Amino acid sequence: MLKVSGFKFSGISAGIKGEGKKDLALIVSDKPLSAAAVFTTSKVKAAPVILDQERIKKGIARAVIVNSGNANACTGEQGLEDAKSTAGSVAKSLGISEEDVLLSSTGVIGQRLPVNKIESAVPELVSSLGEGGETFAEAIMTTDSFPKMHSVTDVIAGKEVTVAGVAKGAGMISPDMATMLAYVMTDADIDSGMLSHALKVATDVSFNCITVDGDMSTNDTVIALASGESGIEIVEGEVGHLKFLSMMEEVMVELARMIVKDGEGATKLIEVVVRGADRREDARKAAVKIANSPLVKTAFYGEDANWGRIAGALGGSGIVLDESRLDIYFDNVQIVKGGLFTGEEAEKKATQAMKKDEFSLLIDINLGPHESRIWTCDLTHDYIRINAEYRS
Amino acid sequence: MLKVSGFKFSGISAGIKGEGKKDLALIVSDKPLSAAAVFTTSKVKAAPVILDQERIKKGIARAVIVNSGNANACTGEQGLEDAKSTAGSVAKSLGISEEDVLLSSTGVIGQRLPVNKIESAVPELVSSLGEGGETFAEAIMTTDSFPKMHSVTDVIAGKEVTVAGVAKGAGMISPDMATMLAYVMTDADIDSGMLSHALKVATDVSFNCITVDGDMSTNDTVIALASGESGIEIVEGEVGHLKFLSMMEEVMVELARMIVKDGEGATKLIEVVVRGADRREDARKAAVKIANSPLVKTAFYGEDANWGRIAGALGGSGIVLDESRLDIYFDNVQIVKGGLFTGEEAEKKATQAMKKDEFSLLIDINLGPHESRIWTCDLTHDYIRINAEYRS
Repeated sequence: MLKVSGFKFSGISAGIKGEGKKDLALIVSDKPLSAAAVFTTSKVKAAPVILDQERIKKGIARAVIVNSGNANACTGEQGLEDAKSTAGSVAKSLGISEEDVLLSSTGVIGQRLPVNKIESAVPELVSSLGEGGETFAEAIMTTDSFPKMHSVTDVIAGKEVTVAGVAKGAGMISPDMATMLAYVMTDADIDSGMLSHALKVATDVSFNCITVDGDMSTNDTVIALASGESGIEIVEGEVGHLKFLSMMEEVMVELARMIVKDGEGATKLIEVVVRGADRREDARKAAVKIANSPLVKTAFYGEDANWGRIAGALGGSGIVLDESRLDIYFDNVQIVKGGLFTGEEAEKKATQAMKKDEFSLLIDINLGPHESRIWTCDLTHDYIRINAEYRS
Repeated sequence: MLKVSGFKFSGISAGIKGEGKKDLALIVSDKPLSAAAVFTTSKVKAAPVILDQERIKKGIARAVIVNSGNANACTGEQGLEDAKSTAGSVAKSLGISEEDVLLSSTGVIGQRLPVNKIESAVPELVSSLGEGGETFAEAIMTTDSFPKMHSVTDVIAGKEVTVAGVAKGAGMISPDMATMLAYVMTDADIDSGMLSHALKVATDVSFNCITVDGDMSTNDTVIALASGESGIEIVEGEVGHLKFLSMMEEVMVELARMIVKDGEGATKLIEVVVRGADRREDARKAAVKIANSPLVKTAFYGEDANWGRIAGALGGSGIVLDESRLDIYFDNVQIVKGGLFTGEEAEKKATQAMKKDEFSLLIDINLGPHESRIWTCDLTHDYIRINAEYRS
């Protein structure tokens, strides 16, 4: 059960998605929370993102309302009005200031938000608030096949502190954020500046390192909220600070991996590591190129240790490269050494490694000290089915 | 029939691909030809590319041998020796200098070239030389579903001049060249410097403007050869020069479009035009991003006028953008005006346009004078089947 002191959750059906599916979700705190957020870098931003970017500046929030089924993106002025109006009706119902309500939307782009449906559902949304985050996790899903939650509890300064996260996302996932929403809650006592720093650091090693299809969304948002209910204050430079950062990292990396694992149509989770790059940006550029290559991703699906496609993607990534120094491994099986195939035996073992649900692909460029890691998934028939047959 | 004075062609089966499929091809001229070429910009280059880059420098060639079924890439020193050896055996059989033989390979990466099979087949390859290029076009195919040829004959200075081209390519097609080979032959009398310039200009508006999956190959090569047999000299700045350039462009654009049309699993050819960009590089960046987006390409497949995915890809492309000025059209149907959906009626018409085998997608950013065009295809179940099930 997902539980953090100081937070209440709910998730209900407001009829946005239809078929009685949950599509409206709420996080609420009795007291003001420290709040921080990171948002999509897309030039096309959804209305709730534009609103949140303003509201997060003061570092305080009391509630977050999230709807799935409609992204409220590419909706112009009307979209902003609709976002304000729904946040306002939550504020009214909770008896708090409208400015303390953050909001997220995810779903179809370019259609007007069904404000009436949402506002009619607010009383039920508020009355069903409870301690567990399960219904919240379910109500924010779109093409997700399972709800994504992860929680870590550890002892800091003699007391238990919890960091818990909920996320959604399956398609339109690119390595600079993703079509994803994530909410990370803690009962630590941490000011919004430090929380913001922790969120940025942890986002860089988690949500910024995943890809499903290289597409970036208009709505990506990660919000961190701290209630302070544990009574443990996180102080810059003190022992608990690093532990808190690592808890944030663990929760967010776990959520990020879940998103890739649930990548639209995905059957495998692959960790792509490029090391030995001469320049830092080269390591990332190569890892992203390989992790997004449709030819590499279909070979993953086909369980084909087709290192030629990997070499091809690497060669096309534009990085500094010496083919004769290139090493490639599937898990710990070396299939390329000094740019050359190591033989049938290695290929057989590499193919075995690829039969697993999770495996790693390591590319060593052997030219320098820089390394980068991206989680990706395979590209499958179901990806095509999901994205060609349904409007999302 | 593909025919150009001064050229002979052949295409036979050497047993590289198996099942009796044609896999060895030859172009030969009785006299030295003006020659020019452009190659893959991949850092991982196949042995024949490395060899050709040296040999093309003198601007003269007599023959081109091409094999399909094996790329001779990622094969190190051995690969270079194998390439030299096969070119040498063709030279010997034709009684010409080894340095005058260019060569291309396409197929699986990382396996040694079957030199014995090729060398044993050379006598038959030479003895079956004839005037038509059809067997040549067939023998260079890999995952292609049809041979690709196009020929233009026009009158320059009172005499007929022909430009004819043959190409292969279906997968691993990115907008900076592609997993493609192309050979453009003319009977014009043109020096290798001017031929090289014409080839570069025409490549920029043809093969550099197509994408199937955003992957770049180790073997991409376009070779232009001129026999001079028409007796018409192409002179810099004279009237025939521009006509010749436009003939080169027509042949190469037609071949480029055929490659996209034959994109692995493709059912539709889409011309993506981004105009009104503030900066030249923005127009191309946006067009490439949209043309490669799996979400956009699956929507093409699903015949879904999902402009939200297009706006999403555009927003993620990193270009200068003002959402409120954005216009989007499918063929001549405007579905987005000033960043907003134009309504159900337009969507219905746009969906109709998408049901065709070929349609255009126009994105007008309305910020500046720059325009870019990319041809792409849809992303389908068959793409997955082809690339997950077969080693290529």
